[in-house]
Amino acid sequence: MRRYSLPLRVYYQDTDAGGVVYHAQYLSYMERARTELLNEAGIDLARMAEVRGVQFMVASLEAKYHRAARLNELISVSAEVVKIGRASIVFRQRVERTAELLVEAVITVAVVDKGRMKPARLPPELEQALNQN
Amino acid sequence: MRRYSLPLRVYYQDTDAGGVVYHAQYLSYMERARTELLNEAGIDLARMAEVRGVQFMVASLEAKYHRAARLNELISVSAEVVKIGRASIVFRQRVERTAELLVEAVITVAVVDKGRMKPARLPPELEQALNQN
Amino acid sequence: MRRYSLPLRVYYQDTDAGGVVYHAQYLSYMERARTELLNEAGIDLARMAEVRGVQFMVASLEAKYHRAARLNELISVSAEVVKIGRASIVFRQRVERTAELLVEAVITVAVVDKGRMKPARLPPELEQALNQN
Amino acid sequence: MRRYSLPLRVYYQDTDAGGVVYHAQYLSYMERARTELLNEAGIDLARMAEVRGVQFMVASLEAKYHRAARLNELISVSAEVVKIGRASIVFRQRVERTAELLVEAVITVAVVDKGRMKPARLPPELEQALNQN
Repeated sequence: MRRYSLPLRVYYQDTDAGGVVYHAQYLSYMERARTELLNEAGIDLARMAEVRGVQFMVASLEAKYHRAARLNELISVSAEVVKIGRASIVFRQRVERTAELLVEAVITVAVVDKGRMKPARLPPELEQALNQN
Repeated sequence: MRRYSLPLRVYYQDTDAGGVVYHAQYLSYMERARTELLNEAGIDLARMAEVRGVQFMVASLEAKYHRAARLNELISVSAEVVKIGRASIVFRQRVERTAELLVEAVITVAVVDKGRMKPARLPPELEQALNQN
Repeated sequence: MRRYSLPLRVYYQDTDAGGVVYHAQYLSYMERARTELLNEAGIDLARMAEVRGVQFMVASLEAKYHRAARLNELISVSAEVVKIGRASIVFRQRVERTAELLVEAVITVAVVDKGRMKPARLPPELEQALNQN
Repeated sequence: MRRYSLPLRVYYQDTDAGGVVYHAQYLSYMERARTELLNEAGIDLARMAEVRGVQFMVASLEAKYHRAARLNELISVSAEVVKIGRASIVFRQRVERTAELLVEAVITVAVVDKGRMKPARLPPELEQALNQN
């Protein structure tokens, strides 16, 4: 299934007084990779919210932190679709520094309707777009 | 005019690899104090957006950084209304550690209508609420 | 074991264009509750880093998102120590709106030495402080 | 003098419940452009802190917000050195969407020694690097 890898620089804004990237910031990095994967598949989240009235919500996540990234390092964050359900998508994500695994996560995002935040059906064009590679 | 002071703790999430609070984070601290000032005046920003269709946008700001706050320190952030215009409010804000001034700013927020983001008139009940002390 | 609950207001800075709190922000809320639990136990993270040369790093986390918090709502975030290991502490954390569970997580933080970021022994005074209630 | 322009995508993490980029986030965008300008000039902030014992602190800033960026838009943020002092650098910065100016700022960063956060002399190799174009 679809996979996307995004190169990133670590800036001061991403780090904390421990001298390394703040743990929650890796999850923001991962959101960037998921969004670019979707854009590459022709899925614009802003338009999906407006036209279809649905948006994604993170439903659950599991993350393991192996090593820390430091200020001004170049790293990459990847997103890979591992499962497409009726109302959710499961992504496997990794943050790496060259060949070294820093953080890995499995993140389930659910489709919800924008107003009531209730589970909604995955739009068919989205399912189709994600199944093409 | 109205003034509000909010005590805060500095957490890892607020700091950067320089060992002190990240410069843009003080502006987020200041937003918290403005919001609490408004809440105390009976103005709920979420409801104002929904019922009146208007929201605030920062239009301009000037900030001076004198000293840095560090991890786990207790600081306070204040907001004071210094001018109420037809379509904007000017706040003077300070971040302090006990009697020591860390950061000061003058921040102008404009009222805009929610859909088009165009300047809008300050809702009269908001003007009235801010003028009462 | 020790437990701490921290009341919080949701500000614009915590939300995203989906109209609710950004998913990674709940993890930042949770860090605040862990830090306050430690402070209440007499453990100052800034001093621990300076005096003992050790700091905490999140090693793994699992989070489930049930409902979303919205702008200007009052919520609470709790931290509870559920396991104290030789070199790590496991926290159970919840974000709630009145009696309603919004997000829950299990978060393992490891002790590392500040320079090399290698696993280190939990300082004995910290273990002792956490075991007292 | 030196100038750098960095293309950026707006992600959910950058936006707030107002549907647009959170005002303080533009300042984080600007830090990215300053850092890349310095990297292009051969100045690595992490190494400068370690080897020379100095780091940059924002000393003052003035920002004007003209228009808002929205979710998933492609924007660019530029940094231009406009003045090099004995202990500070002044940058002019702009966030643009195609030819449209969104936010502009003048930001003064001061050099401080890492331990005491006191003003320090600009390292000569840094001054030299910034004067070359």
